[in-house]
Amino acid sequence: MSIRNETSFGSPLSVGPRLVNIAVIGCGYWGPNLIRNFAATPGARLVAVCDLNAERLKPLAAQYPAVDMTTDYAALLARSDVDAVAIATPVFAHFALARQALQAGKHVLVEKPMTATVAEAEELIALAAKNHLTLMVDHTFAYTGAVRKIRDMVSTGQLGELLYYDSVRINLGLFQRDVNVLWDLAVHDLAIMDFALGQEPCAVSATGMSHFGGQPEDVAYLTCYFESKLIAHFHLNWLSPVKIRRTIIGGDRQMLVYDDLEPSEKIKIYDRGASMLDASPEAQNRAKIDYRMGDMWAPHLPPGEALRLESTHFVDCVQQNLTPITDGHAGLRVVRILEAANQSLAQRGAPIDIKRA
Amino acid sequence: MSIRNETSFGSPLSVGPRLVNIAVIGCGYWGPNLIRNFAATPGARLVAVCDLNAERLKPLAAQYPAVDMTTDYAALLARSDVDAVAIATPVFAHFALARQALQAGKHVLVEKPMTATVAEAEELIALAAKNHLTLMVDHTFAYTGAVRKIRDMVSTGQLGELLYYDSVRINLGLFQRDVNVLWDLAVHDLAIMDFALGQEPCAVSATGMSHFGGQPEDVAYLTCYFESKLIAHFHLNWLSPVKIRRTIIGGDRQMLVYDDLEPSEKIKIYDRGASMLDASPEAQNRAKIDYRMGDMWAPHLPPGEALRLESTHFVDCVQQNLTPITDGHAGLRVVRILEAANQSLAQRGAPIDIKRA
Amino acid sequence: MSIRNETSFGSPLSVGPRLVNIAVIGCGYWGPNLIRNFAATPGARLVAVCDLNAERLKPLAAQYPAVDMTTDYAALLARSDVDAVAIATPVFAHFALARQALQAGKHVLVEKPMTATVAEAEELIALAAKNHLTLMVDHTFAYTGAVRKIRDMVSTGQLGELLYYDSVRINLGLFQRDVNVLWDLAVHDLAIMDFALGQEPCAVSATGMSHFGGQPEDVAYLTCYFESKLIAHFHLNWLSPVKIRRTIIGGDRQMLVYDDLEPSEKIKIYDRGASMLDASPEAQNRAKIDYRMGDMWAPHLPPGEALRLESTHFVDCVQQNLTPITDGHAGLRVVRILEAANQSLAQRGAPIDIKRA
Amino acid sequence: MSIRNETSFGSPLSVGPRLVNIAVIGCGYWGPNLIRNFAATPGARLVAVCDLNAERLKPLAAQYPAVDMTTDYAALLARSDVDAVAIATPVFAHFALARQALQAGKHVLVEKPMTATVAEAEELIALAAKNHLTLMVDHTFAYTGAVRKIRDMVSTGQLGELLYYDSVRINLGLFQRDVNVLWDLAVHDLAIMDFALGQEPCAVSATGMSHFGGQPEDVAYLTCYFESKLIAHFHLNWLSPVKIRRTIIGGDRQMLVYDDLEPSEKIKIYDRGASMLDASPEAQNRAKIDYRMGDMWAPHLPPGEALRLESTHFVDCVQQNLTPITDGHAGLRVVRILEAANQSLAQRGAPIDIKRA
Repeated sequence: MSIRNETSFGSPLSVGPRLVNIAVIGCGYWGPNLIRNFAATPGARLVAVCDLNAERLKPLAAQYPAVDMTTDYAALLARSDVDAVAIATPVFAHFALARQALQAGKHVLVEKPMTATVAEAEELIALAAKNHLTLMVDHTFAYTGAVRKIRDMVSTGQLGELLYYDSVRINLGLFQRDVNVLWDLAVHDLAIMDFALGQEPCAVSATGMSHFGGQPEDVAYLTCYFESKLIAHFHLNWLSPVKIRRTIIGGDRQMLVYDDLEPSEKIKIYDRGASMLDASPEAQNRAKIDYRMGDMWAPHLPPGEALRLESTHFVDCVQQNLTPITDGHAGLRVVRILEAANQSLAQRGAPIDIKRA
Repeated sequence: MSIRNETSFGSPLSVGPRLVNIAVIGCGYWGPNLIRNFAATPGARLVAVCDLNAERLKPLAAQYPAVDMTTDYAALLARSDVDAVAIATPVFAHFALARQALQAGKHVLVEKPMTATVAEAEELIALAAKNHLTLMVDHTFAYTGAVRKIRDMVSTGQLGELLYYDSVRINLGLFQRDVNVLWDLAVHDLAIMDFALGQEPCAVSATGMSHFGGQPEDVAYLTCYFESKLIAHFHLNWLSPVKIRRTIIGGDRQMLVYDDLEPSEKIKIYDRGASMLDASPEAQNRAKIDYRMGDMWAPHLPPGEALRLESTHFVDCVQQNLTPITDGHAGLRVVRILEAANQSLAQRGAPIDIKRA
Repeated sequence: MSIRNETSFGSPLSVGPRLVNIAVIGCGYWGPNLIRNFAATPGARLVAVCDLNAERLKPLAAQYPAVDMTTDYAALLARSDVDAVAIATPVFAHFALARQALQAGKHVLVEKPMTATVAEAEELIALAAKNHLTLMVDHTFAYTGAVRKIRDMVSTGQLGELLYYDSVRINLGLFQRDVNVLWDLAVHDLAIMDFALGQEPCAVSATGMSHFGGQPEDVAYLTCYFESKLIAHFHLNWLSPVKIRRTIIGGDRQMLVYDDLEPSEKIKIYDRGASMLDASPEAQNRAKIDYRMGDMWAPHLPPGEALRLESTHFVDCVQQNLTPITDGHAGLRVVRILEAANQSLAQRGAPIDIKRA
Repeated sequence: MSIRNETSFGSPLSVGPRLVNIAVIGCGYWGPNLIRNFAATPGARLVAVCDLNAERLKPLAAQYPAVDMTTDYAALLARSDVDAVAIATPVFAHFALARQALQAGKHVLVEKPMTATVAEAEELIALAAKNHLTLMVDHTFAYTGAVRKIRDMVSTGQLGELLYYDSVRINLGLFQRDVNVLWDLAVHDLAIMDFALGQEPCAVSATGMSHFGGQPEDVAYLTCYFESKLIAHFHLNWLSPVKIRRTIIGGDRQMLVYDDLEPSEKIKIYDRGASMLDASPEAQNRAKIDYRMGDMWAPHLPPGEALRLESTHFVDCVQQNLTPITDGHAGLRVVRILEAANQSLAQRGAPIDIKRA
């Protein structure tokens, strides 16, 4: 994963590459955010918006009179002046739409989860590589100040060796009909973990429940095992009376709490830990573990919208032929975990190994 | 499980049964609390305290000059003026000490977890029944105002049908050497759930990790499946930089959050929920789930020390030959889950059925 | 103060009065909110926007192509098709602009504080009355679900007799140059109190400090005395490292905490209080005050933007010749307190009586 | 004020001065804490406990069989083996009891507020000086890790020039009958401020209200002015449904929040501030104040009971003839503010100058 440091985000001022013409596909919940951002991203020109439902296009047509509004995806892909598409449809449609676009020679930014299966993700990666096109997945959180701070803390060793990663993302609603709560909510946390830790799990165990007949699971728990002693766990729930977005990362040097609902101080770093001392005969029932209780520190995080940073990064990657921070492989790694999690879920937590190519 | 309502706690004033002479066994972390409470419980007389370590007895001897301090458990059991023993030793010793006491005709209050195995728990229950003795397990939380309020809410149907039970008990330290974090911390939550819900799980899946060589698991996650659509989950961690003690119970009528660290308002009840509407063609990706957002309500909880209520209840049970609220069967049910959880933990979450007698 | 109940907000569907043509004056911080709302309020037509700074009009012209953008206020007032103006300029300009508008026969909605002096406020009220025009002040919080709930609690006697009203509104920035922190921040709380309590103070004492040479006070404290035993206090600070927006209202039956930063549960009602018992000789140092600790309750508040409700109310008042909930007299009452507070501030808290007309 | 650094607290191990024999006077709410601590303080020997109410002495006699329990204060003072008395009676009795003790040649530790009037405090100071006796006031918070950390931050200039000091101490109960809420609660905060800032106010303004006929004020607000631009404010309330103990100190370099109810992280330091830039013509309504938003930091505070540190310090002062950190002058400074505050309170906030000797 090619990660550029913070200062390298954004286009170099001295270079003046030609504009990237972008079409946004899908105008449901998330599409309008992509439209708003690409309409304002330097280096990008929003040229078209596509949705099967013409009604959804009407208000956008009023707001963006210069942008082509269409229900005809094939015609859009046939246009030589469209360089890239950003796909924000329901999950099941990601693969077909992205494949068509890549086949038509368009760069692709696709919503998360990238695809509904590992096989599909692998096919998109191969296709993009063959056609020398940028394939990027919209793991938005990787572009937030908080998550980038976490990645810094981990990669520079400030947390020490990682012991556990514990994440909770629960609230009341919005139920999805086509995917379960793991594919809807855990996808955010798996994308964060993938970016922040740079490690892949080797096995998963998932449990959960569907409380509404015929609907996907609305409560789920996912454990990820790694080759190291790291253990990760995710708690997802569409039925919680309270909203929680909190991740705790325990290292053997420092520990970190990331609370995305905090207006400021989203990240708190605790100089706390435990380490084993030599066992001694006097230690009867208590293990000789040495606790350390130190300061807490909440670094100031730079403001700024993650999606703006991300749309700029996509344009950079297209213009300069760079590998996106959240490339197709990142999307694949997340889908790999989700696919294994679904298998485990169906077997009440039975462990499922994750095979890497 | 014979549960008496709130007003039945405490001895009837008109009856004047003879005092129950009690000995407390084990003066480590918890024993002194039992000593302090039984020394002040009406109907009880603290007659002896026993610990293998004579050093531990010295300060207690100064504080309780009238109480016999001894390191000789066998001699203590031989005394005809000892009616009951309260056992607060490390877990591995519970069974042997309790069995000896029951064989000697003493009533027994034993710390949680009641025993280290299901077989041991079953043997103690049988022995107590045969000898017509009270066997009670110290599931202290069942005697708190908060947990008794939860039981009321559940049993009167105010939460509706239960959907999930989610519990978090994490903090930094105190590591145990002889039991893992499930047996140390989840035992509290399993005892609470057993008392509050009155339902037994049929299968479990547990995951976790030991981060210190040769030590038991310090982080663990446990899922309990039930015959109904209820799912329960427990998160335990000795390595968390922050302390959390929070349980969320979701019902289809109301939902409840129990935060044991709140100085007041430990219980918050949310008039919130979700229910499925008829599917309709217009509902494309969103399931037709109807959300309800209503008031929140935090009932005032009566003050009072749980252990005092519990010690009084133990004396009542001995004097009046009553079945304790937290009897040997309650202790067994909790051990049954823990034993299955350990099996699952060793298999990375593989589901383990719980067989009931 | 004519207060209509909730269901009376909004225009009756069966009546179809002609549209109210509105011009918004001032496009600084708040003006764009008025523009956005009046552009979407049923019964209103946004016909013009005016600012002395033509640069500020440019982006608005692009967004509202059908709306006239002008820097000429006199010409705007001369237009016969403008029915009403909404004034959102710096405070010092409120009076002159509102007077001109009323003289030109236009209805007026003016930002808070309504004017810079009591005399000005009185003149505007008289002028509006003489010309049979609506004069409304933008006390936005009076249109929030939370504040309307507080008013309900107070007016129906659920809090009992009011004992105190304590308000804190502190944060870092934004410093004002033309008014001090009382006129900038306390104005919100005084407007809330005026609406919620329906009582006017009879005297004030204010203290504070300016920490930057030549600038107005950036920290201030204001006490309001009433004819009753009610006491109100306001804490305002532009220099606080933490943001707090919290009001506590103590009644002798119940007490209420309003925390505007809570995402849900903005209002918490405590069934707590104290009342005096007969003094008795045994009560040596402790007064015989009886404490009551009961439940806490957080009513669900209806969602919805306050400014939308307010703009609709303004249109209703103009169309149907109604007295606004936050009419000129409400604006005057708030200015009266602020003017007295400034006098007290200059004398380090010396009490200043408030004379009512 | 002689302040020794942390490591100097406690008696030097190499020195072995003779034990200080101490009597505790008054066994109401606070006295038992003094008894418990002096009974365990190295260098001290608790020799007697005195209370007018013999009933209060009974349980203490059982607990401390070696300590003389008496209702005869004069006889106690006549004993040559009593070196010092610790006075924990109601406020009105402090002066007479302390004077008698000092006249009898006893060192004195007296509860806060030291006396009921400035004149009384001055007389005690003079008497102690004349008789070469230690006079210390029990400003307990000065011995907590949190307040000592604040003092360090202030005295080393880490906060920069102090701008404001804002303190809130509110809860429901316990009403006092003999003193108002300022003398009961503000005394804590004034003692903290006196110790932490090392500055004395030059004037005060206080407002408040008594809601129960014939009882002292139960809600009060106090502003302190200083020679510098520092302003301090205190909010006290016996009638609040919620408990708050929070102080914010704003400096021009950093700001600090001290929340005494936080189990850990009682002190949070914000690298935030504001400073004035040169005014420029473009700055129309916003003052050119530059905001700085930086990290937050919560230093780990050493555990330990403040009263133990304080009792040790008292013994040190008596043995080594040192000036206590919280000496009679500290007690006087606090009483001076309270006396002036009461005068202002009676005049609805009229400013009262504080004259220093």
